[in-house]
Parts: sequence; C-alpha cells; structure tokens
Amino acid sequence: MIFFTSDYTEGAHPTVLKALEETNMEQTTGYQEDVYCDKARELLQERVGSYNNAIHFFAGGTITNLTFITHALKPYQAVISCDTGHIALHETGAIEARGHKVLTRPNQEGKLTPEAVLSVLREHGEDHHMVQPKMVYISHPTELGTLYSLEEVKRLKSVCDRYGLILYMDGARFAQGLAAKGKTLSWKDLPMLFDAYYIGATKCGGLFGEVLVIENLSLADNFLYTLKQCGGLMAKGRILGLQLIALLENQLYEKCGAHAIDKAQQLDRIFQKYNINLLVPTMTNQLFPILENDLAATLSKKFAFQKWDDYSATHTVYRFVTSWATPENHIEVFSESLEAILCP
Amino acid sequence: MIFFTSDYTEGAHPTVLKALEETNMEQTTGYQEDVYCDKARELLQERVGSYNNAIHFFAGGTITNLTFITHALKPYQAVISCDTGHIALHETGAIEARGHKVLTRPNQEGKLTPEAVLSVLREHGEDHHMVQPKMVYISHPTELGTLYSLEEVKRLKSVCDRYGLILYMDGARFAQGLAAKGKTLSWKDLPMLFDAYYIGATKCGGLFGEVLVIENLSLADNFLYTLKQCGGLMAKGRILGLQLIALLENQLYEKCGAHAIDKAQQLDRIFQKYNINLLVPTMTNQLFPILENDLAATLSKKFAFQKWDDYSATHTVYRFVTSWATPENHIEVFSESLEAILCP
Amino acid sequence: MIFFTSDYTEGAHPTVLKALEETNMEQTTGYQEDVYCDKARELLQERVGSYNNAIHFFAGGTITNLTFITHALKPYQAVISCDTGHIALHETGAIEARGHKVLTRPNQEGKLTPEAVLSVLREHGEDHHMVQPKMVYISHPTELGTLYSLEEVKRLKSVCDRYGLILYMDGARFAQGLAAKGKTLSWKDLPMLFDAYYIGATKCGGLFGEVLVIENLSLADNFLYTLKQCGGLMAKGRILGLQLIALLENQLYEKCGAHAIDKAQQLDRIFQKYNINLLVPTMTNQLFPILENDLAATLSKKFAFQKWDDYSATHTVYRFVTSWATPENHIEVFSESLEAILCP
Amino acid sequence: MIFFTSDYTEGAHPTVLKALEETNMEQTTGYQEDVYCDKARELLQERVGSYNNAIHFFAGGTITNLTFITHALKPYQAVISCDTGHIALHETGAIEARGHKVLTRPNQEGKLTPEAVLSVLREHGEDHHMVQPKMVYISHPTELGTLYSLEEVKRLKSVCDRYGLILYMDGARFAQGLAAKGKTLSWKDLPMLFDAYYIGATKCGGLFGEVLVIENLSLADNFLYTLKQCGGLMAKGRILGLQLIALLENQLYEKCGAHAIDKAQQLDRIFQKYNINLLVPTMTNQLFPILENDLAATLSKKFAFQKWDDYSATHTVYRFVTSWATPENHIEVFSESLEAILCP
Repeated sequence: MIFFTSDYTEGAHPTVLKALEETNMEQTTGYQEDVYCDKARELLQERVGSYNNAIHFFAGGTITNLTFITHALKPYQAVISCDTGHIALHETGAIEARGHKVLTRPNQEGKLTPEAVLSVLREHGEDHHMVQPKMVYISHPTELGTLYSLEEVKRLKSVCDRYGLILYMDGARFAQGLAAKGKTLSWKDLPMLFDAYYIGATKCGGLFGEVLVIENLSLADNFLYTLKQCGGLMAKGRILGLQLIALLENQLYEKCGAHAIDKAQQLDRIFQKYNINLLVPTMTNQLFPILENDLAATLSKKFAFQKWDDYSATHTVYRFVTSWATPENHIEVFSESLEAILCP
Repeated sequence: MIFFTSDYTEGAHPTVLKALEETNMEQTTGYQEDVYCDKARELLQERVGSYNNAIHFFAGGTITNLTFITHALKPYQAVISCDTGHIALHETGAIEARGHKVLTRPNQEGKLTPEAVLSVLREHGEDHHMVQPKMVYISHPTELGTLYSLEEVKRLKSVCDRYGLILYMDGARFAQGLAAKGKTLSWKDLPMLFDAYYIGATKCGGLFGEVLVIENLSLADNFLYTLKQCGGLMAKGRILGLQLIALLENQLYEKCGAHAIDKAQQLDRIFQKYNINLLVPTMTNQLFPILENDLAATLSKKFAFQKWDDYSATHTVYRFVTSWATPENHIEVFSESLEAILCP
Repeated sequence: MIFFTSDYTEGAHPTVLKALEETNMEQTTGYQEDVYCDKARELLQERVGSYNNAIHFFAGGTITNLTFITHALKPYQAVISCDTGHIALHETGAIEARGHKVLTRPNQEGKLTPEAVLSVLREHGEDHHMVQPKMVYISHPTELGTLYSLEEVKRLKSVCDRYGLILYMDGARFAQGLAAKGKTLSWKDLPMLFDAYYIGATKCGGLFGEVLVIENLSLADNFLYTLKQCGGLMAKGRILGLQLIALLENQLYEKCGAHAIDKAQQLDRIFQKYNINLLVPTMTNQLFPILENDLAATLSKKFAFQKWDDYSATHTVYRFVTSWATPENHIEVFSESLEAILCP
Repeated sequence: MIFFTSDYTEGAHPTVLKALEETNMEQTTGYQEDVYCDKARELLQERVGSYNNAIHFFAGGTITNLTFITHALKPYQAVISCDTGHIALHETGAIEARGHKVLTRPNQEGKLTPEAVLSVLREHGEDHHMVQPKMVYISHPTELGTLYSLEEVKRLKSVCDRYGLILYMDGARFAQGLAAKGKTLSWKDLPMLFDAYYIGATKCGGLFGEVLVIENLSLADNFLYTLKQCGGLMAKGRILGLQLIALLENQLYEKCGAHAIDKAQQLDRIFQKYNINLLVPTMTNQLFPILENDLAATLSKKFAFQKWDDYSATHTVYRFVTSWATPENHIEVFSESLEAILCP
C-alpha cells in the first residue's frame, strides 16, 4: 500500500535523526533551557530577520494553538477563523475547552478574508452581551493547501491594526508554503505581519514538533507558566531544539518543502492529463481531486488517500498529500495505475 | 559539568533511537492507529497480564495527568493527592485549569495515606457546597523517590473501593520502582490495583513519552476525543509506539531502571561514608542529601544538582538524581571530589 | 419616555411582590429546600403533567443555560443552536467559558431546523478530531419572537432520538409562547418533547428568576453540585419558589403572557395600518418593524426601542417589545404619535 | 421551630421590600444601567469616601467571588486563602472551575495571616512549574465569625504591596463587622486597604444581592463582559440598586448589623451563664458553642442550628447565627428552654 493520506506517514528526514543520535549522550538542562534550543532560536531569528522575540517549542500543532491563544486572550475574548480553520474544525474544541469562542466565517478557498473579519467586528460592536473579538487566526498554507498572497495578509493586518486585533499564523506546513509555485510569504515577511506565528516541523521533515515565535512581546510575559499548565513543556526540550537546528541548517527545511511541492506538481499534472478536476487549484502539497467513485474504489486497493467531502451521486472529493519523503516511484506507480485503469 | 539534576539530561537509550531509525521511512497511519502502537499495546498487556484495557500514548507526564483526570471526572469532582504530588505542586495548576480541584493532605515521606483520604471524605460528606472527592492520585515512585509497599496500595484501594473512588497511579519513574531495593509493586500488580496508571518512558530510557493504561473501561469511552482536545494526540503516534516496543523487548525498561537504582545506591553509600544525612531513605533514583552550605557551594563548581528545600541556617536539602544513562565515572568523580574536599 | 425596549423594564406583577411580602418574616431553610420551593415544584408538575423530574431555580437565563449545559455534557461534547440562539450570540461565550463549543447553523426565522441539525451531524461523523454534537438547544419563543409548531419540535425530537441527542428548550418567554396567536407548544407538551427545559419568570411577570425542569433524570444526578459551582444556588431560594407559586396560581403566568401578546398585536395592527413592514411576522411580544430612518429618529424622542439590524441605506430594523406590564395608554400614545408624524 | 441556622432564614427588611414596591411600575433600562443603580453607587461611594471606582451588582456571594477572581487573574495565577475561606471550602470548586488554583494555609481563628501568605510565596518563588500566587482573599467577618483588626489587614496589605498581590475582601456579612464589639474595619478603611471588596446584602437586611467595588481600576476594564459571561448580569439590575439604596439610606445597613450583633451578644451571655464553652470568642453574629450531645438533641426539638464539627466523644461544636431579623422573643424562648433543661 502506498500512502498519500498525509504528510506524517514517515518518520523524520535522516539528518534530523542523525542530530538526535550525535548528541544523544550529552547532558543538558531540561525544559528548553539548553544550548541547542538557544542555537535553534538564533537560527530561526536569522531566518526571519527579527531578534527581539520569544521562541518556544511544542510537540504538536493543537497544543501550540491552544497554549498561545489561552495565553494571549482574556476570558471574554474570542478568536476569528474561517470555518475550515484547524482550530475551528479539527481540534475537538480545544480552544473552547480553555474558555474561548472561535468565531467563524465561510472560507474563500480555505482562506479568511478581511471582509469576513470586518463582518465579525460589525456584528459584535462593543456589546458586552457578546464575546469580544481579539485575535485573527489563519493557517498558511491553509487546510485546503491554498496560500495567502502577501497582499492578502497585508490587508488582514491592516484590519487587525485598525481594530487592535492580534494576528496569528498557524504554519504547520510553512515549508510547503515557502516552496510553492507563486511563492507568497517568505521568512522575512513573518515578523512584519504577525504578532505571533508557529513554524511546523512535524509535516516538514522533523520527527515531530512546532516552534512558536511571539513577536509582540506584550503577549510573551510569563509564557512558560501557560506552556507548563497546558501540558506542553517537554522535559527534554533539546529534542525539539536539535530538530530545528537540523532543519534550518543547510536549508533542509526549504528543501523538504520543495520536494513535497515537486511531487505534488507531478501528481497535479497526472490528474490534469486524465482530465480529473480538482476542488481548488493545487498550490502546495495537498491535492483535492474529484474522483469518479468506481475509479476511487479501484485505486484504493493499492493507494491510501482520504475522503474529503461528498461531491455528487457519482463523484467524491478526495485528499492526496505529498511530503518531503514522497519517493519518485510512488508517483510513477500511481501514474501507471491510473493509465492502466483509465486506458486499458 | 556533571549533571545529577534529573533523569532527563540525556537523550534516549541507543536501542530506542535505533528503533526509530530502522523504521524511519516506512509509511504508517497516524494518531496511534498504526501497527507499532498496536504491538506496543500487546507487549504492555503481556507485561501487566491484563488484556482488556485501553492504552494511549502521550508526549509527557503533565499532559497525561490532565487528560486522564479531565476525562474521568465530572465538573464538580475533585482528585485527592498528597501535598507533594506532582499534580498538586508542580504542574502549574494544570488540573485546575481544566476545572478540577486538587484536594491535598500532608505527605508521609512523599506518600498519601488511607487515613488522609478518609479525612478528606469525612470533611466533604455529601455536601453539594463542597466539591465531590472522586479520585485518588498517587505517584509511584513518589516525588521524594519513595515507594509504596504493596500493602499500602492495597489499603488505599480498599478505601477507594468502599467509597467509589477512582485509583490512579502516575508512574513517571516506574522503571526505577520496579528495580528498587525492597521491590514493591510489580507489573502484574498494576491491573489489580488501579483503575488507570501511566508508565513513564521519558525518565526511564525513552526519548520522551508516557503510556496510559485504563483498566476500568467505564472510564475509557471516547477517550480519543479528550486526548485530541487537550492537545495530546500526536500525529506520528508510532514514534511513541516504537519507543515502547524497544523498551519492553529484552527487558530494556527493567534494565534501565536497574541501572539507575544501581548508581543511586552507589551515591547513597558515598553519602553514608561521609556521614551526610538524607531527608528520606533512598529507595529509588532520587537522593535528598542534607549538605552543609559551603560543601554544596564547592561541589556545585563541578556538579549540577538541585536545591530542594531549606533545612537550617547551615544546611540545605538538595536533590541528586541518577538514571539509565549515568556513567560509572560520574559516580567515581563525585566520590573523589567529596573525598578531596572533606578529607584534604 | 415610553420604553418598548424589552420585557424587563418594570418590576414584577404586584401579586408576586405581595407573595414576598406576606411571607417575609417567616423562617425557612435555605438553598431551595424550603416548603415554598416544594410547593412551586408541585404546581409546576401539575401544569406540565409530569411528576418524576428534577426542578431547580435560578436567578437568570444565562446562568440557567450554562449550568444545565455544563452539567449535561462531557468535556468534548457540543451543543447545536441556530446562529441567533441566545447561547450562541448573546451570552458572551458563557458556554465556551465552561468548555463547550456551540455549533451553529443559520436560523430560519429564528428557528433551528432538523435539516440543520442533520448537517451538523453529517459534518462531524464519529471523528475524534472534532467535537461530538450531543445537545440541541432551542429557544421558544425564539429570539426573533417566532414560535415552533408542535410538528416542528416533534421533527427535531425525532432527530434527537435517533442520534442520541439531548433536546433542551430555553423558555425565557414561555408565557408569551403559551398565549400566542396560532398557539403551539402547551404546558403538557414539554415533558413529552424535551429532556430539559426552563420556564422564564423574569420576562413573564416575575421580579426575576427562571425554573429548570430536568425530565430526563439521567441528567439530574448531583445537579446541586454544578448549580453551586456555577454560582447559581441562591441562599434564599424561597424567593424564587414564592414567585413561581404566585405566577402559577390563578393562571397569572398565562394572563401575563396573554397581556403581552394582546399589546403586541395592537402594535402590529398599528404598523400594518401605516404600511410599515416587519422583518418577520409578529408571533409573540417582539416586533421587528423596518422603519424609515427619519421616522425612527423622530419616534425616538418620545419612545425607547432597540436597533436590531441594518436594512438598507434608508431603512433600519428595530425591535419593539411589549410585556405583562405594558399599559393601554402606551399603545395609544404610540399610535397617535405615528399618526401625527405620518399624516400631519 | 425557631431557626438559628443562618442569617438568611427570613426575607428582607421591610424597608427594602417597600423600595421595590414603590418603584415597581416605573420603566428603566436594564443591566445595572438605570438611575437606581447609579444612585446606589453614589451612596456607596459616599459611605466609603472613594469616588473613582467601579461598582457592580450581583445576586449572590459565590457568583461575585468567581466573577471577580476570573476577571482579575491570568490563567496561571492563583488566589491565596486560609483553609476555611469560603472560596476554598464552600463554593464547590467554583474558582477552580474557572481555572484557578486556590492556595490554602491553615486558618488562625478563621483568619489568614501575613506569615501564611509569605509561606505560600516562599514555596512558589518564580518557578513556572507552579502556579503564580497573585491574589489574597479574606472574608471579613470570617467564616468563623471573627474579625480582622485594622492592624492585621494593614500587615496583609503591606505583604501584598511588596509582592504585587491583589488584596480582596469578601464582605458577605460586612454589616455585622461594622457593628461588632471592638469594631475594626470601618467603611472608610476599605478603599485604603483593598484592591476590591464586596459588601453583602443577602445576610445584612437585603432580599438578596452583593455589591462589588473595584478600587484598583486596572482590574476593572471590560468587567461587564466577564460579569455577563459568568451568568451574573441580571436583566433587572435595578432590583439590586434599589435594595442597596434602601440599605444605605438612614443607616439601615448599619442598624441591621447592630441588631444581629445585639442578639448574638445576648446569646453569648446565655451560653456563658450556663458555662457552655465556645470554639472561638463571639465577635459577630455567629456563635460556635460546644454542646453536650444530649443537650443538643433536646434543644434541637425546638430550635434549628447547624452542626459545625466534631469535638469529643460527648460534645459537638454547633453554629448559631443571629441576624437583622432575629426577634427578641427567640432569644427569650431559647434562654428559658436552656434553663428548663439544665436547671429543672
């Protein structure tokens, strides 16, 4: 079985594992206070070109989102997201479990628009019978694999600035965003645009882990208290620091992203060749082909991929994902299989 | 600098890293639904001799405790712990952050007594103006490195049974408990005694991770929802499964514990040799010597160890910790240094 | 200034105040355990024709909703509401503050449809990456003053029964629902249809207070613990019991509702007379006229009423509310004023 | 049956009810934004001699405490109380339910000492593995009916000032504190000493209600959001304002307290006359006689009073409470009954 189900079907890029191995028997202090975490912070600061920020490490995306949002918001404040945002739909109410409403608006190809944010603000006014919108959450790349243009984020930021909203980016797949066709946000844009953002490793070559950067230091006070309280402070923090070092040195992070994009584009061309439509244009490493049901059934004997949504009586939307680890031959086998089925 | 600060100063036992490496490029499904997590569950079930339970994997101890307690208790229910219990003192209010009071009583050498539990019950009665005590939390080994005897836990269980309380064990250092002098709880005792317990890897040879076993299946329904909501469901769950396999095969887990205990006993003998008193008898891999302040200052130039508590104007209690990774020569160097200072 | 802003601009029906006065110096036990609360429970049980339920008293609607929902749901469970539902929009995230997501769908004239519920269920499936929908919340009358037909609620109940959802009614204005033109749910329907419901007094003749009836006793265990924890357990519970007795004796509750409806219909006829359109048909004591902006400005010099929503460049939707207390002459003065403005 | 069980066995002082009646049919805006609430605020400001504060009204004590503490603390911050503090013991974990740990130390005759506060601070240091103590809660009068001296509160304040802690007073029975023998805190002391405090009406002549005064305005921003979210914002806020006006005009509040104290002292003299010891000296309207068990049983046929605690095999501590409403003849009948039993 060949898996196109996600970008976390394999372990880590070998360089990452090697970093763990080489330092394995060294003794360091715990809780992200070691030299490796510090070096990782420096490398990331160089990458984004910003040196006055707070950088924390997490084991996964949901714990990153819930910890930061819990820390940044007051009890009566809410976060705005589009309806497909990860915090809105796929974190089992983690944000609400810590007390905060997620205010949603319909997505536009996976994205939140400034108009949607304004409509939330208009609805809420300054009425204490409603929650107070205080943060805007976006994922980039989005849950639909799409990307914000620099201009789009600037417009969001402009709304946030005017109304005193915190702008936060979930970059679980940021490597893929960096490498995408029609490249949009670069490393150096992040500190200019966001109060805080997290850079994903789990889906971008790391074994696991995400790195949160808080640029707006007024949101960073006592952050370690919240991190510990939410259960996210790993004893051996260095494991996370070491991974990030490995990913940032020699452009490994960017290379991982580029590989994933390259394989996704190959898949995209294959779908196009057989006139298979996609739900949204393929911008990163997630593809949403609309497959005829019988075809999907036949393919599923050899390939694993995820049902995304119903489409029609005869067709269904599926999600295919490539990653840093997708081997050339997975694409080839898929291409040949499709050929064999469709042009017997 | 030689670290005796904790049992998480190094990475992982090499066998654990090797397991990650060997399987690194295999593709598996995520979220603990892979073959490795399944195999790890089977191995653990064999170890404890219980096959009808629910086994879940976590990245760390605090997230394990908060997720299980959140899942098992109703909003108005509380958990009983001794005052030194990890959930009571050193998790930054993680349990309260999810809404539950931790009811404490003074510890007896790090342990919670049945009498203490009964006193909580007596105080609370069935009065809805107070929280309802519903769970008893113990750590074994305790935060003071001490161990419950089998008889002590049976007495706790007897109180829990009579009053309908859930009995839960935090086994962050269970490997050290297994190997300790005057061995107490064995693997096979766990399912007989506890509604749920977790077995630590982070401090017992693993890179990171803890494994929760819910024996009382009435507490296991829909557990994955709570796990995801609390931010503890790792995408690449197999990383945790693989580690546990490595630790359970060939008795590696027990060997890691035995090594830590062996080194702790060596340290203990050294303290005794120089008539250095300990706060509590050394039962596992944590030692609490009461050091004269000048001696501590001199030692701290070469060795890292943690201040535990004030003792007197001239003396202070420190914590020394050994682990699976403590090399023979760390003990030797320490012994020689003490000799050089005290008998110049 | 004449207020049409809400149905809580006055105190209480004089009969209610008299009940407080007459018993004022009697001594009773506290916390709803007195004879008056018991008698109120009996009267309410007679009214709804159901005698095996749990009845609790609250000071207001939000605390009622948040306490019941907190008590009935597990941490990962969510409540479904239409977007205009009080818990969704106008309780400042009270439900989320206790950890639960409110899943919304667009309202149909203030109502939640079975189709909307089904769409939530379809979206969520049994996926632990999403919250688990477990309760359906409706208000009757709705926030738009509309009413569910008996048939509509039966269809909702049928969906709830099939999928194991709790069906809960917020009856803050239930008196007005009882008296409405095209009368729909009667007292006796409530136990047949709902797992729980609350009957409002604040907006229906009482000084303040709401009464929760839990018919599904599996949701009632230990309720007083949650009630106390949420801060809703009043020391002098009898104040609430006495009010309910006064309202239920001699059909005062029904009469209060009928008076409000009568005045609303008079207002409705006045709007019709002057060809003023309404956002939704007037079914109870809330009216939503779409007023020309200049007209609204002129009226607002003499009458207080609430802006509801923008409508067009020239028109705005306002809310007018009548109550048990609305005097005949308020309607007359309003009619004359409108006449004077529009037909000078 | 004569009740000495609490100070909320009757309704309200007749003057309070009269105030509700006289204004009953007036129309006012809701949610504490009416003229009566404003006038009540002014009267209270005059009483305490402080005019730059935020004053909010609540239906009861628990909702007041949980709302203020929720609003003032960050998620990782905790409140310090003595073990008998109402928030620690008798609010069913309301503070924890909103995420905050209550750090307790043993009481000294119902009071929290500066030394106890310092011991909490010493234990916690600046360690993010523990919660951050940030508020000190005291009740005055205490749950044992005792009073802080002005000097004692000043010492607490001095510790709070040095360590940046918020000092908060729960004044559920403040009227009785004002009137007590050896009078301690006066109205004018409150703004000098506390960041916030609440003045109780429920137990001091009102029908129900408590008034929170936030003197430290940095803790007052957006308070109405939290008040609404916690379910404490009453629609007819004026009911609370009107009561406070009635209590503050003509010194009614002080007179209610004085009456309760007068009756308590009569009871105290009776106990002394019969050589019945008390657990703590009677300072306000709560008495804790240590009664011989047979005597208690006999008395309980005619009088209701609450068991407080076990004392010995033959004796038990009970609580007797007087109030603004205790009639002369209740004391007489009690005195005669005791005489008849003990000196037959």
